[in-house]
Amino acid sequence: MDEAAFLSTVERLRAGVERRLGDLLPPDGQAPAALTGAARYALLSPGKRFRPVLTLLTAADFGAPDGAALDAACAYEMVHTASLILDDLPSMDDAALRRGLATTHRAFDEASAVLAAVALLNRAYGVIADDARLAEAARVELVAHLSETVGFRGLTAGQARDLARRGQTLTNDEIDLVNHQKTGVLLVAAAVAGALIAGVRGVRLAAVAESARRLGLAFQIRDDLLDAAGQDGKDAGKDAGLPTLVTTLGEHGAREAMHGYLSAAYDALQPAGGTMSAWRYAASFFDAPKVAA
Amino acid sequence: MDEAAFLSTVERLRAGVERRLGDLLPPDGQAPAALTGAARYALLSPGKRFRPVLTLLTAADFGAPDGAALDAACAYEMVHTASLILDDLPSMDDAALRRGLATTHRAFDEASAVLAAVALLNRAYGVIADDARLAEAARVELVAHLSETVGFRGLTAGQARDLARRGQTLTNDEIDLVNHQKTGVLLVAAAVAGALIAGVRGVRLAAVAESARRLGLAFQIRDDLLDAAGQDGKDAGKDAGLPTLVTTLGEHGAREAMHGYLSAAYDALQPAGGTMSAWRYAASFFDAPKVAA
Repeated sequence: MDEAAFLSTVERLRAGVERRLGDLLPPDGQAPAALTGAARYALLSPGKRFRPVLTLLTAADFGAPDGAALDAACAYEMVHTASLILDDLPSMDDAALRRGLATTHRAFDEASAVLAAVALLNRAYGVIADDARLAEAARVELVAHLSETVGFRGLTAGQARDLARRGQTLTNDEIDLVNHQKTGVLLVAAAVAGALIAGVRGVRLAAVAESARRLGLAFQIRDDLLDAAGQDGKDAGKDAGLPTLVTTLGEHGAREAMHGYLSAAYDALQPAGGTMSAWRYAASFFDAPKVAA
Repeated sequence: MDEAAFLSTVERLRAGVERRLGDLLPPDGQAPAALTGAARYALLSPGKRFRPVLTLLTAADFGAPDGAALDAACAYEMVHTASLILDDLPSMDDAALRRGLATTHRAFDEASAVLAAVALLNRAYGVIADDARLAEAARVELVAHLSETVGFRGLTAGQARDLARRGQTLTNDEIDLVNHQKTGVLLVAAAVAGALIAGVRGVRLAAVAESARRLGLAFQIRDDLLDAAGQDGKDAGKDAGLPTLVTTLGEHGAREAMHGYLSAAYDALQPAGGTMSAWRYAASFFDAPKVAA
């Protein structure tokens, strides 16, 4: 597929996710207004929808029927949004801006932000359980995997580690663990979901997971580089003082590590077969001038 | 079954739940200490384990094999604990005490409390999805029902309404809606889970749900009566100024309404058949001297 056709496919998938996300939440005014308002604000503010598009492209790469992975894809965006709301809370990063907009607790209030995050995470499970396009066995697998992803060895653990590392000295391996649990686990879950829905199992599924894990490490370095450059739409210098690979390796070293992980992600995916459009999509983020500059 | 034998059955179930809850969380020290510490503190502090015992007795009433509902029962206690942690947060009730102990954000810190609540809710889904004693179809039904229970028409909505009602004048019907969403929905889910696991469906399942809904309304009035009397192990007078049925009906009227709901719960359960030990158990809470006095 040439570049223009590929970008148009990605944009079609992204737009489809945005429409579906809106449908999967109660309309404003149904249920308490502060709760649905905060949830819709956080979930429907403009975003690249990286995780759901990754799910959809992975599903397509491995031959899933069109649309089969759409609701599951949306579930991962809900989980991602929930994690952003929580990360920004006054008791955590105390951030005022996210994606260039007021954070949810600033636009609404703290209680509504917490409840919206919980409701979004919780809704993700309902969306998967209710997805009649998927066999019951697949829904059970997705729920179990998502719970591992968010749980005591996943996102919540990553956030707890992130908070604990403020002012600490960490080894590069320890930073990789935080990065994997904060970011990588959900990219793995999103990619694995697409493959699972396409019927991929065993060593091929493990290859998809390993590739996504490496992508996640590359992505976290990208975020750290953008943050250091004040180009991430978040409060400037908010993460200053956090140990990251940018602080331990320097900007040039971090950029090299990022490209190393990206290339390793490509290698890891080979045993799975498939058309690699998901990897091509992920790689396109690293070519953006902001990062390449 | 005579009273002593019944109480001993209940205590055996309660103790079994406590043991299993401990096994379903990572040990202290595995995963970040503040996260697992806060989750274990909140989940394993002494409690009557009302919801899981309700699940287990309902399952037994309808003939489920011994132990089949244990993990699902524990999942509802995890959700209940998560909701208590969140309700107590500084941005919500700002409570210092719960069950006579420091609230989780006081014993740890606010960020750890929020993450522990999210991790516990999230773990509930994993426990259900991983429960090999249940058919995959049953697990999907339980996950879908739990998501409805917690979501935009359930616990999170109830908490949002509860916060919004501070200083407002509500009708008795509006108070019933808050009470149902804050308390009743999870009792319904716990009872319905027990019945579902025993294979109950259709109108018999609806009878279980309706009975539990009425029990939930009775329970919330009981809580409000205890709170008004300062006997609930929470900060004294913490809920002063909240519109409840105790404020609108007076103590005597509220007590009558409570007993009316309890009796209506009994009536609603009749079409379901079963041995009614779950109702007997629930009713035993209303005979305690604190409430009868």
